[in-house]
Amino acid sequence: MDTELRSLLEDIEALKGSLPDASHRDSMAKIEERVVKIMSITKAGTSRRSKVKAMSAEVVDSNPYSRLMALQRMGIVENYERIRDFSVAIVGIGGVGSVSAEMLTRCGIGRLLLYDYDTVGMTKTDAAVQTLSEINPDVVLESYSLNITTVKGFEVFMESLRRQNPKNSVRDDARSAGVDLVLSCVDNYEARMVVNQACNELNQTWIESGVSEDAVSGHIQLLIPGETACFACAPPLVVASGVDERTLKREGVCAASLPTTMGVVAGLLVQNALKFLLKFGEVSPYLGYNSLKDYFPTMEMKPNPQCSNSACLERQKEYLLAKPVRDALAKAKNEAEASRENESPLHMENEWNISVVDDSEMETFNAPKDSDELPEGLTRELPSADKHQEAAALGGTSISSNDVDLEELQRQLDALNAS
Amino acid sequence: MDTELRSLLEDIEALKGSLPDASHRDSMAKIEERVVKIMSITKAGTSRRSKVKAMSAEVVDSNPYSRLMALQRMGIVENYERIRDFSVAIVGIGGVGSVSAEMLTRCGIGRLLLYDYDTVGMTKTDAAVQTLSEINPDVVLESYSLNITTVKGFEVFMESLRRQNPKNSVRDDARSAGVDLVLSCVDNYEARMVVNQACNELNQTWIESGVSEDAVSGHIQLLIPGETACFACAPPLVVASGVDERTLKREGVCAASLPTTMGVVAGLLVQNALKFLLKFGEVSPYLGYNSLKDYFPTMEMKPNPQCSNSACLERQKEYLLAKPVRDALAKAKNEAEASRENESPLHMENEWNISVVDDSEMETFNAPKDSDELPEGLTRELPSADKHQEAAALGGTSISSNDVDLEELQRQLDALNAS
Repeated sequence: MDTELRSLLEDIEALKGSLPDASHRDSMAKIEERVVKIMSITKAGTSRRSKVKAMSAEVVDSNPYSRLMALQRMGIVENYERIRDFSVAIVGIGGVGSVSAEMLTRCGIGRLLLYDYDTVGMTKTDAAVQTLSEINPDVVLESYSLNITTVKGFEVFMESLRRQNPKNSVRDDARSAGVDLVLSCVDNYEARMVVNQACNELNQTWIESGVSEDAVSGHIQLLIPGETACFACAPPLVVASGVDERTLKREGVCAASLPTTMGVVAGLLVQNALKFLLKFGEVSPYLGYNSLKDYFPTMEMKPNPQCSNSACLERQKEYLLAKPVRDALAKAKNEAEASRENESPLHMENEWNISVVDDSEMETFNAPKDSDELPEGLTRELPSADKHQEAAALGGTSISSNDVDLEELQRQLDALNAS
Repeated sequence: MDTELRSLLEDIEALKGSLPDASHRDSMAKIEERVVKIMSITKAGTSRRSKVKAMSAEVVDSNPYSRLMALQRMGIVENYERIRDFSVAIVGIGGVGSVSAEMLTRCGIGRLLLYDYDTVGMTKTDAAVQTLSEINPDVVLESYSLNITTVKGFEVFMESLRRQNPKNSVRDDARSAGVDLVLSCVDNYEARMVVNQACNELNQTWIESGVSEDAVSGHIQLLIPGETACFACAPPLVVASGVDERTLKREGVCAASLPTTMGVVAGLLVQNALKFLLKFGEVSPYLGYNSLKDYFPTMEMKPNPQCSNSACLERQKEYLLAKPVRDALAKAKNEAEASRENESPLHMENEWNISVVDDSEMETFNAPKDSDELPEGLTRELPSADKHQEAAALGGTSISSNDVDLEELQRQLDALNAS
């Protein structure tokens, strides 16, 4: 935009000089003035900065990252700069998706992949790329204008999620997928099931988000294939106030929307994405938002061994098989930490009693004791996953126990293979 | 911006037609092309719509309010259009203030008064007015570039809060102040005390907001002069992680900032502002946000009869004096509602158990039983207001009881007058 205006001004200057008539030159000078005024207006609005090579904590006006890098100095994040190594895919660039994309862009995320099939004059994803590149030119932005629920769209979606970030083809972790996290910001069940299918196939962690049709409640949910319930394991929770989806599809009727609810849900979604990527705080397995009462229910959902999604069952098997390795690693880590604690003192102040994520704590924090219980105000559309588990348990299968031995594990796997 | 570009194009057209030389006309045509390209770029970003006379629920692309008016059809808000009658003052146009202003603008608020003394090239408030008027030209925007903590700044601040909205000089409620709500989005104690002073003097309800220096927690707090604790009644709660404010003022050191925390706090702030103005749901007296654990503490604080702010003590007296009237009104309202309930059926579905704000419910909802208890993770910098109350009670004064009779009320007033 700035470049275009400068070229325009150069052309006007050149032509003005070549005009023989003085009155024409005067008119040209007035046109030039108008352009200068427009330039000053644009400058005040969006003065595009140049790219920044490395993130610095230096407190100067020219450094856009000083207030983010301060998180490192304050001991919140161990290595904030790592954010530049991460790729995040955002599916759905509507109310929640566009705000989430802006937040991640302001945070200096390495690469953003944007998916939508809608248009706002130009395609929504191209419009988003244009706006976001003005906000932060350091972010690598990829625009995918396609419908993931079509066969062709799904193919391109899968392929783009697999592709390595060209910036860091050699990563310290040997992940096969090219993105570190997928954020689902779509507004319908079908699209969520497609994201679920893709992430289950790719063994890709994702966070799902949603806002109710009456715009006064919403939620986010972390889905780790094999480890947590997938979107097909448990029927979606009804967080809306019981509005029939079909009534919304009638012509002349639309769902409600509030910028406030969108902002809160996008904020909670991206905050949890940052916690997940940069490894600080605790990532919420599920977090609801009831704006009428400022009530925030939390809970956890285990995978359903009777899940209808075969890729989910594959991931569940892998997760069970890897349990001995996980346990050994956790034990080694705990022992290393314990010996380190004996050497150096803990943080001086810790008023919020904040600690690094710990499995045993995650299990109890704010979650209902019995995983079959739902937080106040939530109802299930269909029987819960646990009911299936109970039914399965009667047939000899159960993965609800926390300390199964290897023999038990093999029995469970056999049961899964037989199902 | 759009207007400026159109005028520029007209001037170029006119001059092009008057040029005798064909090669000059060609150059001019190229200049014209550049402007058209710039216009298309701006259009994609911010195409300014024309003003809308009345809010409509009609679902057409040209109606920017259909998804807000849907709140009415869905029974969430009784009369959404009333939002156009309201004036909201936002003090501090930084991270939380600017996002809050944008949300209220998108919601179609009637009038926004913006206060800040900082500059970003132009003054922050002028820059905000420019951006916001592009988003929604229906909002009346007032820019006050001043420092409210100076004598002169405070005068202008007070005067602007008193001035009636020219759009609705005759209001159904006979309020003396010209704004309906003040939102405090400042980043320091001194400015908060100034907002507190102004609101106590004007008997003006306000909502305070804050984000901790480490950027990972924040809060909002509703302050109703005389009814709730004012900002001077109780020392500010430490929601930050104990960073010494003085270390932050050193050169080369800045507080951390996260777009996510800003977005969540602004969202909660404006959502509660909407609930307050449009009378739906429950307005939270205090709501904290700990992003590391997704923990949202709530509580209530009563006014301190020993408050150092004399205007607060005046408001406390008025509030106590008006108690019999309030009780009579509440009783009449309850009786009227009870008789209405017998006539017509209740809402068919109410999964979240949502009800209109009710004093007795507010007292118990999520609030600690003993008002001296703080939610987990919060500590007081100084002894709590209740400690002062206890001390006062020993001297014969107490306003902690919920059902005092008139004689008791008089005794309390005498004690307040004597203090």
